[in-house]
Amino acid sequence: MNFTLEQIAHLIGGKLDGSKETKVNTISSIEDAKEGSITFLSNPKYEPLIYETQASAVIVDEKLFLNKKINTALIRVADSYAAFTALLEAYDRLLSFNKTGIEEPSFINKTATHGSDIYVGAFSYIGSNVKIGDQVKIYPNAYIGDDVTIGHQTIIHPGVRIYAKSVIGSHCTLQAGAVVGSDGFGYAPLEDGSYKKIPQLGNVVLEDHVDVGANTVIDCATFNTTLIKKGVKLDNLIQIGHNTLIGENTVIAAQTGIAGSVKIGENCKIGGQVGIAGHLKIAAKTQIQAQSGVSKNTKVAQTIYGTPAIDFNNYLRSYTVYKKLPKVMKQIEKIEEKLLNL
Amino acid sequence: MNFTLEQIAHLIGGKLDGSKETKVNTISSIEDAKEGSITFLSNPKYEPLIYETQASAVIVDEKLFLNKKINTALIRVADSYAAFTALLEAYDRLLSFNKTGIEEPSFINKTATHGSDIYVGAFSYIGSNVKIGDQVKIYPNAYIGDDVTIGHQTIIHPGVRIYAKSVIGSHCTLQAGAVVGSDGFGYAPLEDGSYKKIPQLGNVVLEDHVDVGANTVIDCATFNTTLIKKGVKLDNLIQIGHNTLIGENTVIAAQTGIAGSVKIGENCKIGGQVGIAGHLKIAAKTQIQAQSGVSKNTKVAQTIYGTPAIDFNNYLRSYTVYKKLPKVMKQIEKIEEKLLNL
Amino acid sequence: MNFTLEQIAHLIGGKLDGSKETKVNTISSIEDAKEGSITFLSNPKYEPLIYETQASAVIVDEKLFLNKKINTALIRVADSYAAFTALLEAYDRLLSFNKTGIEEPSFINKTATHGSDIYVGAFSYIGSNVKIGDQVKIYPNAYIGDDVTIGHQTIIHPGVRIYAKSVIGSHCTLQAGAVVGSDGFGYAPLEDGSYKKIPQLGNVVLEDHVDVGANTVIDCATFNTTLIKKGVKLDNLIQIGHNTLIGENTVIAAQTGIAGSVKIGENCKIGGQVGIAGHLKIAAKTQIQAQSGVSKNTKVAQTIYGTPAIDFNNYLRSYTVYKKLPKVMKQIEKIEEKLLNL
Repeated sequence: MNFTLEQIAHLIGGKLDGSKETKVNTISSIEDAKEGSITFLSNPKYEPLIYETQASAVIVDEKLFLNKKINTALIRVADSYAAFTALLEAYDRLLSFNKTGIEEPSFINKTATHGSDIYVGAFSYIGSNVKIGDQVKIYPNAYIGDDVTIGHQTIIHPGVRIYAKSVIGSHCTLQAGAVVGSDGFGYAPLEDGSYKKIPQLGNVVLEDHVDVGANTVIDCATFNTTLIKKGVKLDNLIQIGHNTLIGENTVIAAQTGIAGSVKIGENCKIGGQVGIAGHLKIAAKTQIQAQSGVSKNTKVAQTIYGTPAIDFNNYLRSYTVYKKLPKVMKQIEKIEEKLLNL
Repeated sequence: MNFTLEQIAHLIGGKLDGSKETKVNTISSIEDAKEGSITFLSNPKYEPLIYETQASAVIVDEKLFLNKKINTALIRVADSYAAFTALLEAYDRLLSFNKTGIEEPSFINKTATHGSDIYVGAFSYIGSNVKIGDQVKIYPNAYIGDDVTIGHQTIIHPGVRIYAKSVIGSHCTLQAGAVVGSDGFGYAPLEDGSYKKIPQLGNVVLEDHVDVGANTVIDCATFNTTLIKKGVKLDNLIQIGHNTLIGENTVIAAQTGIAGSVKIGENCKIGGQVGIAGHLKIAAKTQIQAQSGVSKNTKVAQTIYGTPAIDFNNYLRSYTVYKKLPKVMKQIEKIEEKLLNL
Repeated sequence: MNFTLEQIAHLIGGKLDGSKETKVNTISSIEDAKEGSITFLSNPKYEPLIYETQASAVIVDEKLFLNKKINTALIRVADSYAAFTALLEAYDRLLSFNKTGIEEPSFINKTATHGSDIYVGAFSYIGSNVKIGDQVKIYPNAYIGDDVTIGHQTIIHPGVRIYAKSVIGSHCTLQAGAVVGSDGFGYAPLEDGSYKKIPQLGNVVLEDHVDVGANTVIDCATFNTTLIKKGVKLDNLIQIGHNTLIGENTVIAAQTGIAGSVKIGENCKIGGQVGIAGHLKIAAKTQIQAQSGVSKNTKVAQTIYGTPAIDFNNYLRSYTVYKKLPKVMKQIEKIEEKLLNL
């Protein structure tokens, strides 16, 4: 990033108080800003910070009135928070989609097809019959197995592994090391105590606008499909078992594990390090607190907590008593003593 | 997959009711089957589904009697479930072992040796003195460090990392992103509060028929060996600490973490997100429920649960009381009141 | 490793009882040692083992007096434990830093610069403006994004992914599959129930002597920096959220998850599978037991446990009662009965 304040004022439709030629090369919070940073001030509570900031420019509301001298340029706009967000997004889009072309050496099977303006980083592997949409960015060292489809404007970060037959929607982002389509964990016990693998022949489908975190793993279905619906956001190091379905716009925090054949409704919020046992059904809009262990279906939207998970407030009320259990025991002993002395 | 029904009937030893030339290209459950799918009907309870299925063919028991018209071909066999499983396995074997040859560019140190019918995908790295058995399949972007040995018919999925000196048995499968032989987490505290690394100079041995899930990590021993015995099945995102031993045919679900120097017996079943503290001994056939935290040895086969883990039924009985602790407190208060009023 | 006993005696300043030409090629514990191994005996309690060991050589204290015949060479030193540790470290240094040169094919952007004696393994990717210090070892299949800086004597194991703009200090070690700088998990909810990504434009800084475990993930800051201070040691499969700060010499065991914007003090010890909620402050020298879920700030050094985490001893005392809650219920019922009968 290296822009003049004139360029930025123009981009966000603001009025510049300061030198047009001043350049900024990074975006910061107002406390941490240094020379070359641009930042914003939206909440009037933080006004004192503007008199001390070392930022080269601050985006402020046009109505902001200043009491003291400042050492920074200002860009005045109707809504400084919205303008700053717009700037972030423009910059992010610029960074995310600026790579194009095919770096060598890369491996692209001759039966693979692709749209316009794609990027394929060096050492990336694209198997047979792969179909890649427009403006897809595949960073170095990624693996796209045979017969995979990837929609438009999807970003595949370095070292992502997509097994054969997976379907990846448009506007998805897969962070580094994510694995899509690994074998489900299915074994049949034999009489001698050993296990025989149950072939895992299905696939994984990510619909549009799905984000997958770094080193997260989504197993393929035994047969049919492990389905991640539109708008689902998965954080890092998550485990999704075979044949599981995650409903639209459900968000899941890091290190949560979902076993096989689970059906999760839409708009759920699932905290970090949660475990959900196999074959459960989780109702739409369920909220699951971090580290909970879910062992039963939830039939209506509610907040649950604990291992095994129960109603959130119920759990907390019980935990309040739990913390003073030794005291409760003394209370009971005292009662028994009194009874004896009656 | 693209077979005629005649081929499939021949493969599973069945009698075909339908057109020999009909082709199937996928395997489905009876509910989700579409044109081109083959499926099976074993449980008579699901008979109604066969009248509605869109499958191109259904494998059924030879004795099955149908009451209505059907729109699908049938392949009749003595045991439809067993025949379907055999079909899955044949298909799986076909898929898993169909790749052969060395794709370019790959890096194979000239001191490495290998058996017949191997596959080495592009961008895979094979270090010095590596020994690779017959029919080993190494997918793209994998790393096999110096002096590693890999037995026959083992499958190394994309992006697997095997550190130097590891020994991988025959008939193993390592899913994408699995790491074998990373440094154990051993540090000696120094007087100034900092830590000095204890060199980790041992290795990892996986015996035959061991499966390792995607992004699972197995640390090397400080010295000697971290040993995963025959038939062990590890799910995704598992952590195995240095110098740990896992006994034959033990299965471990996703995201479980086992600290260093733990000895786990054979035929254990360990749920997901379990933690086992360092230096413990877990008896053969122990069953550990998901999310448990094990802090003591188990000396006989039993089922345990909770953090710290105790007897499973004991934990559940205590949890039943836990859920109503606030009510219990009210009970106690009432008792105290009564005592006062006596 | 392949050294004569003369070379080893010279290295650790010891006196050799045995043949100078005997060669050793591995380091073992005294119980597991075989021909070709060198080991040590420090604790007199284990003296009986020296009469049975198959080791080719044992490092012992110079004052050690033996009662029986032995079948192994001895190297006598003032402090056998210290000498053995020095040997381990020398061997480790040898192994870790013996690779040099650039293997082909690798991808090094022409704007990247580097110091002396570096190693770049095949299929590693080094982006534009990357700066690499002396004796840095980058194993195969690693990805170093644009504008990354790496200090002296840092080791990057196979398949590590370092996103653009990250700063890696000197003397750091990153194990296989570690991800540094992936996007933080930040989304703004929209009115229709879907989520809009908040651009993640900051970076990650690892100071000197930081170790990062296999498949561990450290997210970049939204803006500014996710900061891992000097001497921090992170085990495998850890999640560090965006904008988090970890203080000097804090150690964290495997599979722990730290949400965004957490500030952790120096010299903390955090067990495995711990979860720490967003925006918390953890005091220096706090100790957190494995599997705890931290939901509140800690203001002074203390040991905490449980979900939500409370004082360690308090938790254990409550758990002691928890385990006998069904019995406590019977006690209460008996009391009620007695009261009725009064």
